[in-house]
Amino acid sequence: MRNPPALEQLVESLRCLPGVGPKSALRMAYHLLQRDRSGANGLAQALHNALQVVTHCSLCNTFSEDIVCPLCAADNRDPTLLCVVEMPTDLMMLEQTRVFQGRYFVLMGKLSPLDGIGPKEIHLEKLLKRAQDGVVEEVVLATNYTVEGEATAHYISELLRSRGLKVSRIARGLPMGGEIEHVDSGTLAQALMERRSVR
Amino acid sequence: MRNPPALEQLVESLRCLPGVGPKSALRMAYHLLQRDRSGANGLAQALHNALQVVTHCSLCNTFSEDIVCPLCAADNRDPTLLCVVEMPTDLMMLEQTRVFQGRYFVLMGKLSPLDGIGPKEIHLEKLLKRAQDGVVEEVVLATNYTVEGEATAHYISELLRSRGLKVSRIARGLPMGGEIEHVDSGTLAQALMERRSVR
Repeated sequence: MRNPPALEQLVESLRCLPGVGPKSALRMAYHLLQRDRSGANGLAQALHNALQVVTHCSLCNTFSEDIVCPLCAADNRDPTLLCVVEMPTDLMMLEQTRVFQGRYFVLMGKLSPLDGIGPKEIHLEKLLKRAQDGVVEEVVLATNYTVEGEATAHYISELLRSRGLKVSRIARGLPMGGEIEHVDSGTLAQALMERRSVR
Repeated sequence: MRNPPALEQLVESLRCLPGVGPKSALRMAYHLLQRDRSGANGLAQALHNALQVVTHCSLCNTFSEDIVCPLCAADNRDPTLLCVVEMPTDLMMLEQTRVFQGRYFVLMGKLSPLDGIGPKEIHLEKLLKRAQDGVVEEVVLATNYTVEGEATAHYISELLRSRGLKVSRIARGLPMGGEIEHVDSGTLAQALMERRSVR
């Protein structure tokens, strides 16, 4: 006794979602077919639609329905500053601070050789072209302070500095409200090394 | 700066999956659009196809592409025994034991008033009709030994016994290889109460 083929196929297809194994996929398929057919239908249509219309901004590489995304098209941003982030979520977090007035480049990932993600997968050629448009003066690396994020930042900084571009990295230190007693020693060590003079 | 509408729609639609919150949905959408477009396409098609062809067996209520599922159509099963289970997965687990030769009825859920799942949602009318076909002599309740599964079994047994049907419940006790030192006291208490004489 097995599940009908169309159901098995659905279970198999759901496994393309990150973090979904055989058991969750089966649970999801049962739920969709038994309790939420309209949700399943909506999901099928949303997938179809997104695959049709969502592409990448030709300038900053983020997800966009237009050739140039609204942020790259805006004329009130500083074109001399280019901030490199891993994912669109990071871009949105930085935008929420309202501190950065420049433009962005979204790698859509990070260097991770074990997962088969090399320089090509994170669009470094596109970034090189973008950073060498003659207007950009400084590239701010805002990748995560994880092992992969650090490696990515290092790789990109070598690449850009060899082409004469000014490269900077977002600061590392204690977070807002951070207490020395509770912060990890790695962060504390960095905060000490990168101390700045009080004026 | 927000994500493009088609992407936002996809994120929203992914939230119909059980156990998927806003953050996982966003991660899934990014993954599908960035790293697995063919998977996303396959998923859309599998959903569409499953919604089209997967329905319920008119006899046992399990998922089926035919009006009567292969197991109900088989002529080598004992028609006097009807086993009631919560989900198709349970049916398959029971089939793997190769001990039960009767037929099944799949509730596709369990009584759970807090989730809005009452007698109607678990198809008890269909079960009543099925159990009273004049051939079924004994109904074996094989719902889980959870609070909801127990409540469901109790409700069904009242319903069926009032109509003069013989109802039984799968046994409870120590599992195979179970050690008294490590088993929970509820199971041990049941194993004592439901002890059987050694012949």
